[in-house]
Amino acid sequence: MQFSSSLLENAVSEFAKLPGIGKKTALRLILYILKQDASFTANFSNAIMKLRNELLFCTKCHNVSDDKNCKICNSDFRKKNQICVVENIRDVMAIEHTQQYNGTYHVLGGVLSPLDGIGPEQLNIQSLIKRIETDEIDEMIMALSPTIEGDTTSYYIAKKINAQNIKITTLSRGVAFGGELEYTDEITLARAFTNRLPFENLVNETM
Amino acid sequence: MQFSSSLLENAVSEFAKLPGIGKKTALRLILYILKQDASFTANFSNAIMKLRNELLFCTKCHNVSDDKNCKICNSDFRKKNQICVVENIRDVMAIEHTQQYNGTYHVLGGVLSPLDGIGPEQLNIQSLIKRIETDEIDEMIMALSPTIEGDTTSYYIAKKINAQNIKITTLSRGVAFGGELEYTDEITLARAFTNRLPFENLVNETM
Repeated sequence: MQFSSSLLENAVSEFAKLPGIGKKTALRLILYILKQDASFTANFSNAIMKLRNELLFCTKCHNVSDDKNCKICNSDFRKKNQICVVENIRDVMAIEHTQQYNGTYHVLGGVLSPLDGIGPEQLNIQSLIKRIETDEIDEMIMALSPTIEGDTTSYYIAKKINAQNIKITTLSRGVAFGGELEYTDEITLARAFTNRLPFENLVNETM
Repeated sequence: MQFSSSLLENAVSEFAKLPGIGKKTALRLILYILKQDASFTANFSNAIMKLRNELLFCTKCHNVSDDKNCKICNSDFRKKNQICVVENIRDVMAIEHTQQYNGTYHVLGGVLSPLDGIGPEQLNIQSLIKRIETDEIDEMIMALSPTIEGDTTSYYIAKKINAQNIKITTLSRGVAFGGELEYTDEITLARAFTNRLPFENLVNETM
């Protein structure tokens, strides 16, 4: 692409560094920004700078936060004896969206993946172990991705935590709501058979 | 979407104002930015602010430019007696990319579209007429979109310019290279028949 302005070229190449955004999309977005009021650009650019400079991570659960501790850890209405272990803050948001969980979280920041150079030291595992040792935790819910890496991480953490008083659970695996049985992969289908539930559960949940 | 940080929420909502970017994509992009070095954010945000504050438009052809006049208008190697009239700077870039045109441009900033409130005053038509009156122009190439609005704009401009010494041309219409004849729309196909070319043209162009 040939640019008649180095400023434009620079802005496009910065935008195109974002994942999933190529040079053409970057140019489209930038021309849109140029068409708006000057205040739009100022707001846009300030919001990002401010986020980068002022965003904190909760010292307890590593969720993003405006303060030293996040809203969830500070809330009096959340059960402090439950920890839901998740990969990233998007998972926290997804679970919060269901409005089904009322405990606290622990954001690992990823899953174990030796090939990508992610070992236990790169994740927030040490602080999780410390929380379990110091706080009064009754249940730890492993809500990691249902992948080999996710399962490995769950096993690793469960082994590390040799506390006998803590119930360790994982999200149930099974056929997804709205999915078609014939397209469900065989591992999921096999697990759904093995872990089949009393029919009353279904009736109770959908009624 | 529930955010545990107002800074994050603010940044996501600013990003989601861009066309074609929803809240989920915005969040993904912002989490990517957060994972990079602080310098990445600074560069990104500076490039956009600088672009907005320092970008100039060529006083002659209205193309984006770092100076008062753009590189193309300033170049000694471009034919100053040809003006190619285009809608926006993306069209300039597309035509430059073909390396087939060696004249100057005139960026209208859009096409006439009364329903969207775009009349002749909203476009750079007056400055085009002035260029044609003052400069020595031999040919004006109308390179607007092959749509009703584009054609209307071309007619409007051609009518406004009642100069007898200027050749007014448009880009040729016809079947697109690599396209399949059966899927070509009937207007294009009909025009391609009417404006059929001597076979030698094809031979000369492809050899």
